[in-house]
Amino acid sequence: MSDWEALIANKLKDRAARIPLEWVLPGDILSQVDEHADVNAFDILGKYGLLTEEETRITESYDAQGLYREIVEGRLTSLEVCKAFCHRAAVAQQLTNCATEIFFEEAYERAKFLDDYLVEHGRPCGPFHGLPISVKDSFDVKGKASTLGYVSFLKNPNATENSTLIDLLLENGAVLYIKTNVPQTMMTMDSVNNIFGRTLNPHKLSLGAGGSSGGEGALVAFRGSILGVGTDIGGSIRAPSLCNGTYGFKPTADRIPYGRIQSGSRPGSPGLISAAGPLANSASDLNFFCRTILSSDPWRLDSTALGIGWRHVPPKEKLSIGVFMGDQDFPPTPPVRRALESARLALERAGNDVHLVAKFPSLTEAVKLAARYFLLDNRNTLLKHVIDGGEEPIKALEYASPASIAGMREYTLDDVWDANASLIEYREEVAAVWREHKLDVLICPGHQSTAVPHDTYGPPVYTVVWNLLNFPTSIIPYLKADKTLDSTTSCYYDPDVVEGAPTAIQVVGWKFQDEEVLMATDVIDRALKMDL
Amino acid sequence: MSDWEALIANKLKDRAARIPLEWVLPGDILSQVDEHADVNAFDILGKYGLLTEEETRITESYDAQGLYREIVEGRLTSLEVCKAFCHRAAVAQQLTNCATEIFFEEAYERAKFLDDYLVEHGRPCGPFHGLPISVKDSFDVKGKASTLGYVSFLKNPNATENSTLIDLLLENGAVLYIKTNVPQTMMTMDSVNNIFGRTLNPHKLSLGAGGSSGGEGALVAFRGSILGVGTDIGGSIRAPSLCNGTYGFKPTADRIPYGRIQSGSRPGSPGLISAAGPLANSASDLNFFCRTILSSDPWRLDSTALGIGWRHVPPKEKLSIGVFMGDQDFPPTPPVRRALESARLALERAGNDVHLVAKFPSLTEAVKLAARYFLLDNRNTLLKHVIDGGEEPIKALEYASPASIAGMREYTLDDVWDANASLIEYREEVAAVWREHKLDVLICPGHQSTAVPHDTYGPPVYTVVWNLLNFPTSIIPYLKADKTLDSTTSCYYDPDVVEGAPTAIQVVGWKFQDEEVLMATDVIDRALKMDL
Repeated sequence: MSDWEALIANKLKDRAARIPLEWVLPGDILSQVDEHADVNAFDILGKYGLLTEEETRITESYDAQGLYREIVEGRLTSLEVCKAFCHRAAVAQQLTNCATEIFFEEAYERAKFLDDYLVEHGRPCGPFHGLPISVKDSFDVKGKASTLGYVSFLKNPNATENSTLIDLLLENGAVLYIKTNVPQTMMTMDSVNNIFGRTLNPHKLSLGAGGSSGGEGALVAFRGSILGVGTDIGGSIRAPSLCNGTYGFKPTADRIPYGRIQSGSRPGSPGLISAAGPLANSASDLNFFCRTILSSDPWRLDSTALGIGWRHVPPKEKLSIGVFMGDQDFPPTPPVRRALESARLALERAGNDVHLVAKFPSLTEAVKLAARYFLLDNRNTLLKHVIDGGEEPIKALEYASPASIAGMREYTLDDVWDANASLIEYREEVAAVWREHKLDVLICPGHQSTAVPHDTYGPPVYTVVWNLLNFPTSIIPYLKADKTLDSTTSCYYDPDVVEGAPTAIQVVGWKFQDEEVLMATDVIDRALKMDL
Repeated sequence: MSDWEALIANKLKDRAARIPLEWVLPGDILSQVDEHADVNAFDILGKYGLLTEEETRITESYDAQGLYREIVEGRLTSLEVCKAFCHRAAVAQQLTNCATEIFFEEAYERAKFLDDYLVEHGRPCGPFHGLPISVKDSFDVKGKASTLGYVSFLKNPNATENSTLIDLLLENGAVLYIKTNVPQTMMTMDSVNNIFGRTLNPHKLSLGAGGSSGGEGALVAFRGSILGVGTDIGGSIRAPSLCNGTYGFKPTADRIPYGRIQSGSRPGSPGLISAAGPLANSASDLNFFCRTILSSDPWRLDSTALGIGWRHVPPKEKLSIGVFMGDQDFPPTPPVRRALESARLALERAGNDVHLVAKFPSLTEAVKLAARYFLLDNRNTLLKHVIDGGEEPIKALEYASPASIAGMREYTLDDVWDANASLIEYREEVAAVWREHKLDVLICPGHQSTAVPHDTYGPPVYTVVWNLLNFPTSIIPYLKADKTLDSTTSCYYDPDVVEGAPTAIQVVGWKFQDEEVLMATDVIDRALKMDL
């Protein structure tokens, strides 16, 4: 066993030991867990009665705000809630492999502290009082590792400080209990790495959980977390949301503070900027998360953050909604198309001004331009971390072999100027779409497909275009792939393989209109639910 | 006479012809206009009775909002107002050489249209109804030239479209009548170029008017304009404001729309971004300008603009104000120091929490870092425009001779990464200052000196640092250099030379807190006035 293999084995042993023995699943269940298995984790949960009735009720009956009310109004304690979610997270971990760091015991201590606080002070600690909140591995939590799945990071010391956002979660009363899995380099849409392995989709283990916040997607969808936090530079919050059927929101960069978040990347990028944001089980919780963080004056704690607090945006009765049904170079699969088409009709019936966007600037151009930005680091910092660990690149990164890297040209200062100039032109073309119909928001696919078999996600064109433009966007889970309803003659997908996978729509607003997008997401979500 | 000399002569002849004969100043006045003369333009105005009593009253009694009320409540017509300001601008032009394009006749037509509109519709066209507003030469106005003082640009066709901001001024009811002078390349603080020559300071013609919006500074200060619009990438709104004694505001970049503004620079800069903003005769007018533009949904017209409308920020009774008295590498001159010290005491007396900032991150480091960004264009686009016109660089650009450019190294992609990484660190140091006293705003010098003799302004360290950080900042004119009050033993200035020059303070807020800075500017301005 090499030095690295021993470190990995230790890490996995430690992670396994963090699950209490009484919660370890029996061998006949564990033997069904396989990345090629057509197995639904929700079915297993029910079939084997893995949770108590009360645990099921606690974890399934509320969104974060509802749970908060139960706690502060005394119908549930934070500790009860915490234990229920820890148990469910432990099941999620064993079925989907979503976790990196597990620390239930500390969570119980914190929950007890908050319960005492509520009794003693007669008021909650903050809007997140008593809520168990899960976070992607890239958030530093004092005393915990942030390996990001890099073997070479196994030798890093544990975090000595929290990421600012972690401080803000705690300041607002949250309980931390788990960190979640990511892909090697966090630049691909399959959450697999050589330390923790692959996160699976709870709806069907043979499908991907998306990435890079794939652990969050699987955990929140499985309701092993009431609210999760991810980061997104090309779709990393939204791909896991749409793959697993959760709500997700990628804010405009630097509105949610990004201080001391680990990305492994070189500081000072002239390219796209990653944004932190929530994954949730209701549209309204996306708003709740952002409102709470932005009302906490994050810029006072974190020099990355912009000095704009939460802006109250009242709901609009009638939205002007553009519908972009897809780019011909990346045709949506029939389930995705049906969800979008169904949403379009429902939104019309609800009285909105709905405009079909006949022509949208080329997504091929957008993804090429995004790639130009992603390649700008001549030092290949992310791949260096892979090489430093003596590990193999994951399948999605095969193009990034040392040989192919050696063949890459050196990027220059002119490449930045040229990319920026191209972006200005592209943005102007996009602006023309907004202008034509005075759009409040655009809806479009979140991806050309639903969740797909592992390592076949393809380029995340429908998400990365909005990172390129720095536009805020959300994912609303809506309907599921259903071969009795979807055209099964398309060459772009296998109806049997994705049967039952969640579908979704994406809601997009102009840069900095985070509050408007969150408002519209809520309005649209209600309209879609009313119409079902 | 060369081809260029003929073009310049024609341009100047045309500009001169735009001033009606009856407003041309007599030779005995014009003979006093000299860039070395200790002559005060306001004194000449009064001494020779160059305006009628009514013109004087109209141009001196109001700020923009006051004038608006006079017009919409029927006590003045827009045409009367327009003629008064055109006359005063004609005098300003002849005394300070502040104009590039003059179009009074079209302004009268527009003013008549607005007067008719008011009668016909019984309501104003918008918040700028009937107000004459002046703009820096870099704004495209349909049918007018935007030479930016580049000889090579004399051959460009006139603008066929307005800059977005011009459209927004018109949409809100403004009257355009004049465009104003800038320095060659707009990268220096003396507004001089080889087409239009040098703009002089109305308080003392031997002093500089600042740059690059120097024409605006001189014109607004002389009240030849009630409200002016400039741009600022290193101090270009604020230097003219503090030199001439006007209010000025540099917003966070891209809040005020920047679409179709001419800068002559290469598109796609990875460095600092210029911001458009107002110069005004009251603190409240800075707020009025920004509120009006940001309430007009600029992002709907202009893809450069961020989707955040005007945020209402109520005035704070008590501000937490940091006072940064100056950097030891750039010691403020005694008049500047006295103004700041006096402001500090007045703000304390007014009941604010005033904190002396003992230690501020090095401005030398900031200015060096800004320079690293400014140098990033290996094509030297701005200097190419100079060379293309076969003209000499102005004195401030002597360092930029072809020989010295040839000696410059080629900048690389790593230079951008490194500058960005340095900026992140610098910003964190600045954040520590804000954090220590939970500052609402910081006040500091706008420059180490008042206006100074031509071509001696020096590096604009106290302004460029805020462009580097993308922080919104305003200038409040406050007191004047006075050798009976100022220490006259300082080696940094000549008390006789700057006697009577306006002094000022700068008010700075965290990035994106434009509304907070404007609120604080108003609160501070009132406190300073109450204390006088």
